[in-house]
Amino acid sequence: MDFPDHVKIVEVGPRDGLQNEAVSVPTAVKIELIEQLAQAGLPVVEATAFVSPTWVPQMADHVEVMMGICRKPGVSYTALVPNMKGFAAALAVGVREIAVFSSASETFSNKNTNCSITEGLARFDAVCAAARANGVRVRGYISCVLGCPYEGAVPPGRVADIAAELLNMGCYEVSLGDTIGMGTPGKTRNLVKVVAKKVPLENLAGHFHDTYGQALANAYAALECGISVLDSSVAGLGGCPYAPGASGNVASEDLLYMLNGLGIETGVDMDKLIAAGNFICGFLGRPSGSKAARAFTAKRV
Amino acid sequence: MDFPDHVKIVEVGPRDGLQNEAVSVPTAVKIELIEQLAQAGLPVVEATAFVSPTWVPQMADHVEVMMGICRKPGVSYTALVPNMKGFAAALAVGVREIAVFSSASETFSNKNTNCSITEGLARFDAVCAAARANGVRVRGYISCVLGCPYEGAVPPGRVADIAAELLNMGCYEVSLGDTIGMGTPGKTRNLVKVVAKKVPLENLAGHFHDTYGQALANAYAALECGISVLDSSVAGLGGCPYAPGASGNVASEDLLYMLNGLGIETGVDMDKLIAAGNFICGFLGRPSGSKAARAFTAKRV
Repeated sequence: MDFPDHVKIVEVGPRDGLQNEAVSVPTAVKIELIEQLAQAGLPVVEATAFVSPTWVPQMADHVEVMMGICRKPGVSYTALVPNMKGFAAALAVGVREIAVFSSASETFSNKNTNCSITEGLARFDAVCAAARANGVRVRGYISCVLGCPYEGAVPPGRVADIAAELLNMGCYEVSLGDTIGMGTPGKTRNLVKVVAKKVPLENLAGHFHDTYGQALANAYAALECGISVLDSSVAGLGGCPYAPGASGNVASEDLLYMLNGLGIETGVDMDKLIAAGNFICGFLGRPSGSKAARAFTAKRV
Repeated sequence: MDFPDHVKIVEVGPRDGLQNEAVSVPTAVKIELIEQLAQAGLPVVEATAFVSPTWVPQMADHVEVMMGICRKPGVSYTALVPNMKGFAAALAVGVREIAVFSSASETFSNKNTNCSITEGLARFDAVCAAARANGVRVRGYISCVLGCPYEGAVPPGRVADIAAELLNMGCYEVSLGDTIGMGTPGKTRNLVKVVAKKVPLENLAGHFHDTYGQALANAYAALECGISVLDSSVAGLGGCPYAPGASGNVASEDLLYMLNGLGIETGVDMDKLIAAGNFICGFLGRPSGSKAARAFTAKRV
């Protein structure tokens, strides 16, 4: 078992998390959250999405968020971008890293983005070219890698092909998303093995949702396969509104607790991370979705 | 990675779970829960504890519970027994399997049972002899195997010694309990490796609490090491009142979801297990602690 010495945690709470919360969060609270997460030592914080406010009202303040945050040197503030219009808007406010996305399921792709997988990838090819021309880094997401709410099982080979294509069009990293949390560790291992035949392991990330309570076990299985980048969401914020029965990402605090226990370095400060989670949960008026955060907080009272 | 073909799930919800719930559960509800769990296919159900009602009022109806359940052939209904008095009472109502316990932490042993580890083991030596004389099977528990709320880290070698002693005095199986959920998968692996040098793997069980969200990842790590018996609690019931900040056992439904996904046979029916969990949570008036149960139940509505 060769674990990586260092794992990069990609914090997706302010985007993947808050996008899927019922409570609408004011811009100032989002900015405060993003800044606290960066101060906690997270190297990448997905801050917002340059998407239509008609479709995703929770991200309507993307310009204000990106303009408002005080950027900490060395931290990457990613913004999700669905098309050239979104890219232009992101570029205009100084975004230095964008995220593009595909799905491993045709049906999900059609329902979520109203186009086929191939059409979606073609659209992002242009975005990637524009990003490259402007020195903007691009991260790729693939959703439904371990199952689709409409199609059920998804062939790992298809995930591998899409990952290779995203890398080919200029993504420096491809995040494999178990959008509806259907995965279990054996399937995660198999997926990573199949994808790693087409894409170098160091360009892959794991993105696990905890719908069935499997997220951390899946993250562990991914680590065992040599994955060294993991996405997570502070306080377990979020989910996916297009996926029936979905719940949030693996909680960043629980992931960090595991990585600390494994002796894997992350550069993230647990106390500051918990404080950031408690800050946003206080605003949302609900308990943290992180068990580690609840346990540490209970100890302190 | 050689996973076992079959895993035995030991359901501890009616005892380890309900003992630590704030709401007092009527005897008839406990009996119904135990019978539903047996009908779901669980081979072992820890039903109650023959302990003093002064110390554990939630288990005061142990005689009524054991007399009340309609025993399904092939299912073992275990009762926790702290001493000879408890054993005699259990024997009198036809208990065929008891559980005895030790702690891997001196301080925890003293605070929890008011005696040292050695004194506790000596007390159980007599109980084991009496059980053997009466053809009653004995299961052993060791608590705090991955950390103690008072002492912090616990040496795996000490756990191994206690496990060997429990086996030696007649326990057919020793369950390694992460009572306060401090463990992470790497420490779990190391513990199992160290203990397996003194006790055959097939006589070991894993018992993980989810205080820091690590339980299922630890269970997975234990499986990877060849452990094929895992304790869990339907709906994630319970915790430990002596352990600050503790929460329930790993939820049986989440564990079953993982085992099903790994293609490991258990004989347990997911729908019936979820129904049993929803039944007791309905009575307790709180949502299930199992994410898989919540996800499956939401899908059906």
